[in-house]
Amino acid sequence: MVGVVEQAFRDLVIANRILAHQGVVDAYGHVSMRHPDNPEHFLLSRSRSPELVEEGDILEFTLDGKVVGTDKRPPYLERFIHGAIMEARPEINSVIHAHAEDTLPFGIVKNTETPLRPVIHSGSFLGAKIPIWDIHDHFGDTNLLVGNVAQGRSLAKHLGDGNVALMACHGFAAAGRSIIEVVRISVYLPRNARVMLNARQLGTDLRYLTEGEIAARNSGYSPYSSETWRAWEYWANQAGVGKMLHKPDGV
Amino acid sequence: MVGVVEQAFRDLVIANRILAHQGVVDAYGHVSMRHPDNPEHFLLSRSRSPELVEEGDILEFTLDGKVVGTDKRPPYLERFIHGAIMEARPEINSVIHAHAEDTLPFGIVKNTETPLRPVIHSGSFLGAKIPIWDIHDHFGDTNLLVGNVAQGRSLAKHLGDGNVALMACHGFAAAGRSIIEVVRISVYLPRNARVMLNARQLGTDLRYLTEGEIAARNSGYSPYSSETWRAWEYWANQAGVGKMLHKPDGV
Amino acid sequence: MVGVVEQAFRDLVIANRILAHQGVVDAYGHVSMRHPDNPEHFLLSRSRSPELVEEGDILEFTLDGKVVGTDKRPPYLERFIHGAIMEARPEINSVIHAHAEDTLPFGIVKNTETPLRPVIHSGSFLGAKIPIWDIHDHFGDTNLLVGNVAQGRSLAKHLGDGNVALMACHGFAAAGRSIIEVVRISVYLPRNARVMLNARQLGTDLRYLTEGEIAARNSGYSPYSSETWRAWEYWANQAGVGKMLHKPDGV
Amino acid sequence: MVGVVEQAFRDLVIANRILAHQGVVDAYGHVSMRHPDNPEHFLLSRSRSPELVEEGDILEFTLDGKVVGTDKRPPYLERFIHGAIMEARPEINSVIHAHAEDTLPFGIVKNTETPLRPVIHSGSFLGAKIPIWDIHDHFGDTNLLVGNVAQGRSLAKHLGDGNVALMACHGFAAAGRSIIEVVRISVYLPRNARVMLNARQLGTDLRYLTEGEIAARNSGYSPYSSETWRAWEYWANQAGVGKMLHKPDGV
Repeated sequence: MVGVVEQAFRDLVIANRILAHQGVVDAYGHVSMRHPDNPEHFLLSRSRSPELVEEGDILEFTLDGKVVGTDKRPPYLERFIHGAIMEARPEINSVIHAHAEDTLPFGIVKNTETPLRPVIHSGSFLGAKIPIWDIHDHFGDTNLLVGNVAQGRSLAKHLGDGNVALMACHGFAAAGRSIIEVVRISVYLPRNARVMLNARQLGTDLRYLTEGEIAARNSGYSPYSSETWRAWEYWANQAGVGKMLHKPDGV
Repeated sequence: MVGVVEQAFRDLVIANRILAHQGVVDAYGHVSMRHPDNPEHFLLSRSRSPELVEEGDILEFTLDGKVVGTDKRPPYLERFIHGAIMEARPEINSVIHAHAEDTLPFGIVKNTETPLRPVIHSGSFLGAKIPIWDIHDHFGDTNLLVGNVAQGRSLAKHLGDGNVALMACHGFAAAGRSIIEVVRISVYLPRNARVMLNARQLGTDLRYLTEGEIAARNSGYSPYSSETWRAWEYWANQAGVGKMLHKPDGV
Repeated sequence: MVGVVEQAFRDLVIANRILAHQGVVDAYGHVSMRHPDNPEHFLLSRSRSPELVEEGDILEFTLDGKVVGTDKRPPYLERFIHGAIMEARPEINSVIHAHAEDTLPFGIVKNTETPLRPVIHSGSFLGAKIPIWDIHDHFGDTNLLVGNVAQGRSLAKHLGDGNVALMACHGFAAAGRSIIEVVRISVYLPRNARVMLNARQLGTDLRYLTEGEIAARNSGYSPYSSETWRAWEYWANQAGVGKMLHKPDGV
Repeated sequence: MVGVVEQAFRDLVIANRILAHQGVVDAYGHVSMRHPDNPEHFLLSRSRSPELVEEGDILEFTLDGKVVGTDKRPPYLERFIHGAIMEARPEINSVIHAHAEDTLPFGIVKNTETPLRPVIHSGSFLGAKIPIWDIHDHFGDTNLLVGNVAQGRSLAKHLGDGNVALMACHGFAAAGRSIIEVVRISVYLPRNARVMLNARQLGTDLRYLTEGEIAARNSGYSPYSSETWRAWEYWANQAGVGKMLHKPDGV
C-alpha cells in the first residue's frame, strides 16, 4: 500500500519523465505538486534536468519559495512561479513551467490576427483565453527569469483564472487541478500551437473551438477517468517509468 | 496453421503497433476490423493506447457499438465511428480514427484555396474528394467526440463513398477494404498533408493527381500484392511486431 | 581480402541501410550499382524495403530491366529507372530512386519563383539545374510509376547530364559516379530542399550557389577522399552496419 | 584526480558527442578548445565525424592551423576557423563550426526584414548582432570552405567581438569563453532560429530581446554555475557520455 505523500513523490517523478520524453522540457523546465498534507507547501525537484529527477531530488517549499528543512542543494531559480500560482488559486494542485519550443512563436509575435487559441479538441483544456505575460512590461530589463515572489505574483495575476499563460520570449506556465491534468495540458499545448501555426499558412479564417465546446469538454473533467488514465499510462510507459504507476481503483 | 479469426486478432495488434510507431495515433485513436465470420460485428480494442494493445484487449461489437458478451472493461467512447461506417459500406472491412497532427490544419482552415487533395502518388488512396465533417454543423456545441450512433451515422453519411473524411478540430476517419489498405491510407495521409502544406508555401498553383491517375492506381488494388506486403512487412518490423506477421501464399 | 564484386554487394547493403536510416527511403525507394565486371548489367535488391535488404536479396539485371538468371523473387517495378540512366550515361555507376518527403513540394508546385537549386555547400552536388520530369506530360494518365523501358528512357532523357531529376508527384532520381557519391547527393537533397523552403519564408531573394562555386566544389571530386569517407563511415555506423565497412587504402 | 589537460581532452569528447546528439553537427562540423597550458595552441579532433571522436583523435595545432608533432592523420580542412578566432580574441577559449540546418535559412535570404536576432531568453547568448559572412564577397568563387589562414582571418574579422557569425550557404561559427558556453550557444542557436522563423509566419512585428535584457543575462555569466552545469550534465547523459563528466567543486 502506497501512502498519499509517497504517491505524490512518485507522480512527480513520472511527470518529470513524461515531460522530458514528450519534449515539453529539456535541460530546463519544472513541474510541482501542492503538498497533499499541507496546502501551504508544495513539492518540487532541486535544480536538476527533469529527465534525471528521482524521488530523492524532491524538496518541500513554502508558497513564497523557501525550502522547508535544511537541504542545501540548489533549488530552481524560478520556483516562485509555482508558489505564486498556488497561492492565488486554491483549486490548483499542480503547476508546470517550461519553454516548449512550439509555444514560443505565439509569445513573440505582436498584434497577430491569430493569437493562440484552442483549435483541436485536445487543446480545449488550454481554455478560451491564453494571456501573454511580458516581464518587461512590469519589471523592465531583466534576465527574463521569474526570480522572486513579486515576479511570480505578477505572472499569477496575469494568468487570472486561466489554465495557461504564455511568457513572452521565454515559455509558459500551466496550472491544473491535478498533476495528470497539467501534464496533459502541457503535452497538448505545443501540439495545438503547431496545428494552428500550420493552419495559418493555409488561410487566416480558422475554425476555433467555441466557448460552448470548451465548456462541454471541461464539464466532463475527472482527475482519474478511464480516458485520462489511458494517456498517463501510455506516456509513462513511453518514458520508461511505467513500473512506477499506481492505478486508482475503478479506472 | 493460424485460423482466419486468430489472424484477424493478430493483424489488429500489428495495425495498432504500426499506427503508434508511425505517429498516426498517440494515446488516442483506434483501428477496427469487421469480424471475418460475421459481417454484422466488428473487432476493436478496449479503451487502451494503441501502442499497448494486445490480443487479449480486443473486444467484439455490434455495428451499433454494443459489446458482444460480458466483458466489463471500458470500450473506446468513439467506437460508433467504426460501426456506422461498416453499416453504410458493406465493402469496407477496416476503419481507422485518429488525430494525426499533420492532418489537422486542413480541417481547421475555412475557405482555403488549397483544400486537401492527393499530391503524391502514395496519396492516391485518399481519393479525389476528402470531405470535412464538422460535428458542430449537425449537433451544435458538443465535446467534439463521436459518442453515439447518430453522430457516427452523420459522419458516415458525410464520408459517402470516399476513403477519408477530415473531422474539423478533431482528426479523421479512414475506411479500407482491408486492414492493410486502411493502415496504408492512414500512414500516407499525414505525409500527403505535409507535402501539400509545404508546397503551398512555394506557390498556390499545385500539380494535383488527376482523376485518371487516381483511377489508374486504384484499379491496381490488391489486398496482398507484393508491393503492399512490402510496406506492411517493413512497418511491422519497425514497430517490433515482425514476428506476428503471417505472409500469405503467393506474395 | 574482399573481392570487388563481393564489396559491391556489401556497399549496396550499406547504402540501403544508410538511406533508410537517414529517412531518404521508407518502405519504398531503391539504390543500384553498375556491375563491377560487366557495365551492361546492374545490381539491385529484389522487391524489399531498403532497411531489410541483405546481400542475398541482391539480383543482377540487364540494362533493360530483365533479371539475369532464374531467380523468381519479385523485382522492383521501377527497376527501369536504373537501367535507363546507366544506359544513357556511361560515367554513372550508381542510381537512387526515392520519395524523400521534403523533395516532393518542389516537384508539385508550378511556376514558382523559387525552383529547387543548391543553396548550401553540401547541396552543390545536386548540380546547377534540377529538371522536373512529369510522367503525365509524356504518357498521360498512369499509375505514376516508371514501369517500362520507355518510361525509364524518358526520365533519363529529361535528366540529361544532370545529377538529380525531380519526378512530379512522386519523388526523384539521382545519379552518381560512385555509390558513395549518389548516397551523399540523396542525403543532402532533402536538406537543401528544407533549407530553401524555410529561407523562402523569410524572403524571396535568395543567395544561391554560383555556377563557379558549384564547379569549384565538383572539381574536387574524389570517390574516396578523406572527407567523403568521413560521412560514409558516420552514416554506416549510425545505421548499424559499421562492421560491413571496408576502408580503402590511403583514406 | 584528473589533470587540467586530461580534463580538456574529456570535455572535447563530451562536447563532440553532445553536438552530434543534439543535431548541431552531423558527419561534419567541429569543436575546439584553446590548450590549457599554451594559449598559442588549440586542441581539435583529426578529420572525423563528431559522434565518433575519442580522446585519441584529438590533435594539437598552432593558431595558424599547423599540426604540432608528427601525427599524419588528416586534420579537418577548416581548422583555420578555430585558430583565426582564437588569435583575434584572447578571451575566447572554445570555437564551434557547424552546419546546423535550421540556422542556414537566415544565411541565405537577402534583405529580409527579420534577420536573425535573439527572441528567446536562452538565445541571449547569441548576442545582439549576428553578422553574415559571405566568403564570395571576399574570395569570389570558391568551394565555400574556409581552407586557409586568410579566409579564417576574414571570418574572424567579420565576427568582430560577437559570439556568432552566420556563414552564407554554409553554416556558422560560434565563440565562447568556455567549452560549456559555446556548446550552449550552439544548441540554442538553431532553436532560436526555428522559433523566429515560425513566429515570422504569424506576423512580422516581433518582440526581440532588448539590449538591456541581453546585457542582464550576460552579466550573470559563470562558466560553472549550477544552471549551466545542469544543461551540460543533461546533454552529456543524453549523448551517452555521462560517465566522462567531472563535476567541479561548488556546483
